[in-house]
Amino acid sequence: MDIRELFAKKEEFLGKEVTLHGWIRNHRNQKKMGFLDFYDGTTFSLLQLTYNAETASPDMMAALSALKIGSCTEITGTVVPNERNHTIEIELSSLRVIGECAEDYPLQPKRHSLEFLREHAYLRPRTRLFQAVFRVRSVAAMAIHEYFQSRGYLYVHTPLFTANDAEGAGNTFTVTTFDPSKGEKCDYADDFFGRHTSLAVTGQLEGETFAMAFSKIYTFGPTFRAENSNTRTHASEFWMIEPEVAFTDLFGLMDLEEDFLKTILTTILSRCDSELEYLEKYNNLPLRERMKKLISSEIARVSFHDAITILKEADKTENFAFKPDYDSDLAKEHEKYLTDKKFGAPVFVYNWPKDFKAFYMYQNDDKETVAAVDLLVPDAGELMGGSQRETRYDLLLSRMNELGISAESMYWYCNLRKYGGCTHSGFGMGFERLIIYVTGMENIRDVIPYYRTPGNCDF
Amino acid sequence: MDIRELFAKKEEFLGKEVTLHGWIRNHRNQKKMGFLDFYDGTTFSLLQLTYNAETASPDMMAALSALKIGSCTEITGTVVPNERNHTIEIELSSLRVIGECAEDYPLQPKRHSLEFLREHAYLRPRTRLFQAVFRVRSVAAMAIHEYFQSRGYLYVHTPLFTANDAEGAGNTFTVTTFDPSKGEKCDYADDFFGRHTSLAVTGQLEGETFAMAFSKIYTFGPTFRAENSNTRTHASEFWMIEPEVAFTDLFGLMDLEEDFLKTILTTILSRCDSELEYLEKYNNLPLRERMKKLISSEIARVSFHDAITILKEADKTENFAFKPDYDSDLAKEHEKYLTDKKFGAPVFVYNWPKDFKAFYMYQNDDKETVAAVDLLVPDAGELMGGSQRETRYDLLLSRMNELGISAESMYWYCNLRKYGGCTHSGFGMGFERLIIYVTGMENIRDVIPYYRTPGNCDF
Repeated sequence: MDIRELFAKKEEFLGKEVTLHGWIRNHRNQKKMGFLDFYDGTTFSLLQLTYNAETASPDMMAALSALKIGSCTEITGTVVPNERNHTIEIELSSLRVIGECAEDYPLQPKRHSLEFLREHAYLRPRTRLFQAVFRVRSVAAMAIHEYFQSRGYLYVHTPLFTANDAEGAGNTFTVTTFDPSKGEKCDYADDFFGRHTSLAVTGQLEGETFAMAFSKIYTFGPTFRAENSNTRTHASEFWMIEPEVAFTDLFGLMDLEEDFLKTILTTILSRCDSELEYLEKYNNLPLRERMKKLISSEIARVSFHDAITILKEADKTENFAFKPDYDSDLAKEHEKYLTDKKFGAPVFVYNWPKDFKAFYMYQNDDKETVAAVDLLVPDAGELMGGSQRETRYDLLLSRMNELGISAESMYWYCNLRKYGGCTHSGFGMGFERLIIYVTGMENIRDVIPYYRTPGNCDF
Repeated sequence: MDIRELFAKKEEFLGKEVTLHGWIRNHRNQKKMGFLDFYDGTTFSLLQLTYNAETASPDMMAALSALKIGSCTEITGTVVPNERNHTIEIELSSLRVIGECAEDYPLQPKRHSLEFLREHAYLRPRTRLFQAVFRVRSVAAMAIHEYFQSRGYLYVHTPLFTANDAEGAGNTFTVTTFDPSKGEKCDYADDFFGRHTSLAVTGQLEGETFAMAFSKIYTFGPTFRAENSNTRTHASEFWMIEPEVAFTDLFGLMDLEEDFLKTILTTILSRCDSELEYLEKYNNLPLRERMKKLISSEIARVSFHDAITILKEADKTENFAFKPDYDSDLAKEHEKYLTDKKFGAPVFVYNWPKDFKAFYMYQNDDKETVAAVDLLVPDAGELMGGSQRETRYDLLLSRMNELGISAESMYWYCNLRKYGGCTHSGFGMGFERLIIYVTGMENIRDVIPYYRTPGNCDF
């Protein structure tokens, strides 16, 4: 039995003796009573073990006096009510150490800095903070699968090795079986795949091929970027969700994004209340309140052009550091003004100048904009980016040509427009962006089990 | 509305007019009656559209006479019973082509070879065969998540970039931002991560660090092997599931593997009956029958030593091409004898000679074997491989030393044994092996959306 089961059936176990396995996080010895924080990670709920030094067996007292924080134990005791916290605790009858914890154990019962915990990333899942973060991450991942599967979407594993470069040049990792440290000139034609191969920055293009067969599909897998930037929001390896939906235009896509986000947040709220309560205190943020507010608000919709008009007007009083302009991208302060002040809600900004966006987006009749949409969320910034796809073969090819993207090597992508195409749309959401928003953690390094950033590939 | 919804509520829709979007797979024109195979991929169930050439509108007849296989259409019609198949069909009242299909469309209403379909892998999801295969794949993935999540396991995204080489030397892809084709000698210290970095061949080691915090965890992600072998079962990129469980020994692990496999197969059977029925005919295999047999059989358990003894005895009549030997690995024919003839059921073969297995496996008291277990399944061969882990710090280090594996760079893995360790075990299952078994497809290239093998990185 694990602690999750014990809590799930606590009424049933009251007054009964149970044996559990788990770790000691803290040990307080107050005169004759002793208290142990005991966990096995299967639930975030705290389980306290208690003992009375005067009545405990000499064997157990000997084990307790030698007990070190971090030790792995087998304990037996009686389940009793803990009146103060309206929960249960265990009156210990025996404790046996099954895995000693060495003296130099880095985690001690005090608040460690996040940087210290990153240096000991292999141990940080044991802390209460990261038990909360990674439980939320796991629950969020499942919520996403449930959302799509229950609505008939097909889960597609798009390839990670690719000879394409979907977003245009740059920022990709090369994959090779050559050894560049040997200084031999290597012809990619002799490499493992017989050509230059890199790691995918998106699964969208292959995802589209499946949407043209299954109508509704989603991907959920790792993505790689060789961006040499050390910010709080960039990692070289992260997970992404990319649904693609046939027979759906830009406005249908916004409906999907809105329903998706609200449903995922509702699921996380219902399954991670204790974790979120803890994270609210740790990060001093009203996490649940802001999620509930998002769920009950209607997401505003404004075209990029109208957003700039609003911002230009606002600039008179806001005096933005970056001046809003119809030819410039939105700055963070602009996004913040739109979500926090103008609309007091998340905002879809749609119909972007085509030069800001990727080649595959639907070209609007104005010849200036494409049917792209970014979702801006208060406290989270840009959470999703999507578009209706360019489905007119000639227009797609001429745009690729303009941007110097080879249509020849992507014949299969272009051909989707020749062989029974239809209006279709999709979005991408960086999974870690969602987890940062939900947990209130500030740094992407603290929401991924083992983060990879320039110069860091530890563990 | 999509076809999945129509079938789910077919009684409700009987006699009503509906509008649907989807593709034309076939068109048969028999005297005055016409029949169209129509699909949108949201369900495997066939939906037939019918029309009466004598009563249909001239507009629709014009559209129908110009209609090409593969076209994308919007159709409207009345839902009526299809008595012959105990299902429903649509009496067409209008049909509009929304996406033309060009003359050179490679898919025609006939049986294409698997090789031809691999060459057109971006179109094959549209065929009935691959609609079945990839639906089963998606359902199986979800079944795996449900299995673990409903039992309190934490889903962990282990890193894909790694500076470790978990299974010992070789077979890994190097990841770099250098360009080896330039012929410059590149110092890995100047590379993106400041050291030589490769793609993970397993997430197990990092998974163990999480099992020592959450007790029960699983991974489900891509894995990479640079093996230069062109077989039916090898791919350079595939997906793997690796659970790790604390407080569980080798025999507890077998219990888990057995329960896991039977539960997953039960879920697939209950959700993919039509797909499996189709695949049975295509591959001429009793897929559902053999899955049901596996579910109802008890998985046999035999030590490697006893398995060899059995095989040596059997060799007198079987006359194996490879002679069974206590110092040699099992050959395919040996596995087949054990599952098909000796036990008539799947078999766990456990306690393997240590030289056949990885460094991290628990060393048995006999000093010769380790607590490893392979699951052999009739018609599938080795489906899972697992072990109880070596949790004794000194024994782990001496084994790593023997095998020339650096304990220094893997200090964090070794330290799990110093800081509150416990008996724990885990297994790995190649996801495509499961899909091959379930679908009866023979080649891994036909169960992955876009396969990567030596010399192939198309699409």
